[in-house]
Amino acid sequence: MVMKRITSVNNEYIKKIASLKTKKYRDEYKMFFIEGYHLVSEAFKSNVLIEVLIVNEEDYINGISNLLVTEEIIKKIANTVSPQKIIGICKIKEESFVLGDRILILDDVQDPGNLGALVRTALGFEFNNIILSNNSIDIYNDKFLRATQGAFFNINIIKDNINKWIIKLKENNYYIIGTGFDNSKNIELLEYNKKVVLILGNEGKGINKETLSLCDVVAKIEINQKLESLNVMVAGGIMMFKIATIKK
Amino acid sequence: MVMKRITSVNNEYIKKIASLKTKKYRDEYKMFFIEGYHLVSEAFKSNVLIEVLIVNEEDYINGISNLLVTEEIIKKIANTVSPQKIIGICKIKEESFVLGDRILILDDVQDPGNLGALVRTALGFEFNNIILSNNSIDIYNDKFLRATQGAFFNINIIKDNINKWIIKLKENNYYIIGTGFDNSKNIELLEYNKKVVLILGNEGKGINKETLSLCDVVAKIEINQKLESLNVMVAGGIMMFKIATIKK
Repeated sequence: MVMKRITSVNNEYIKKIASLKTKKYRDEYKMFFIEGYHLVSEAFKSNVLIEVLIVNEEDYINGISNLLVTEEIIKKIANTVSPQKIIGICKIKEESFVLGDRILILDDVQDPGNLGALVRTALGFEFNNIILSNNSIDIYNDKFLRATQGAFFNINIIKDNINKWIIKLKENNYYIIGTGFDNSKNIELLEYNKKVVLILGNEGKGINKETLSLCDVVAKIEINQKLESLNVMVAGGIMMFKIATIKK
Repeated sequence: MVMKRITSVNNEYIKKIASLKTKKYRDEYKMFFIEGYHLVSEAFKSNVLIEVLIVNEEDYINGISNLLVTEEIIKKIANTVSPQKIIGICKIKEESFVLGDRILILDDVQDPGNLGALVRTALGFEFNNIILSNNSIDIYNDKFLRATQGAFFNINIIKDNINKWIIKLKENNYYIIGTGFDNSKNIELLEYNKKVVLILGNEGKGINKETLSLCDVVAKIEINQKLESLNVMVAGGIMMFKIATIKK
């Protein structure tokens, strides 16, 4: 086992890796990093891991580049306060984006924790493509990546103009389901026999008007009037569960 | 409008209110406090608000005690870093606990954010009684109260021995649904014609074995094998939605 070793936090390559904390350099180098054993192992399984920085030789991973570093270096790079002793470097995939039967579109969902949980739920109910509106957070944001707990690597995610996509998907025989409270239909009553797109909106504002006007139907979950609304993670989970059931 | 006014953070009454941050004094005085206009208004509507501490006279609330204080006092009492200029003092209700048709039992759910979202969802789907296991967080914990966004005041919540309750509820003709992956039945296939109890378990460990053995059925949500499990908020939301639908 031959491994390169770096011990100085001021090493130029370490500085380059640390620069991936910002979107600017992730875009420039077409790379991002992840922290911890679980995410690294998920990235490896998905063939996007190109290198690991490890502190202990026994964490060596076959088939990719391994770099032995110090705990100080890991701490310099990591976003978390008490990082595990491994950092993985991934390449940003060129999106092939083969469209499946169920697609999730998120209009301006802002909280990385909410977004992460929605990605996990989407994987659970086989919404294998997710399109985030252009005003969403960067998909290589570290809090978001951690919140997906690795589900990120098993799903196709892009950021793009969602209205352009909706028009294209309608032309390709997808049924477009928006969500909201005005002029909306109880999710229990939905009937269709098509591939499907589910759109969820921003935590406070919901889906923007122009996007809503492109939907085939707007659906809602009936709840007790004492409650203003469900949390977007919970509402999204129920909608995806229900749609996965209708399609069976 | 005659109002008492306190300007010193060292006032004995202010010290007493601030002591309600700890469970010990909440239990002793049978009171707790809440922060912000929204929670105060929800508490008022639910008849548990006995007093408000306000900075501006225009926040006066009719029919209860009003105390004019300084921003400094509000900051001394509040748990949040930038509190709104109102604090409400509530009495801890003697539980009457009239049992409804749907009851939620939470076995050792620990995260205040998860618990808060589950309480909101429970209100949404008319699970009007919630029983927390004795090892759960205190129900007057401030993070939890804020996470419920006021739903707390519209629902009956107690902390108690959940196994004792399950046995009692079974005797009273409730159908007991546990959740888990071993020997479990797809939630889609559940059939019953009874009042219902849903039990959700700890984020990591699930429901403890003894409680599981008391269930009439253990239910699961079918998900893609690439995902280990759904977030407890999402899983709970889907289960409650599904049960509310079966019962209609």
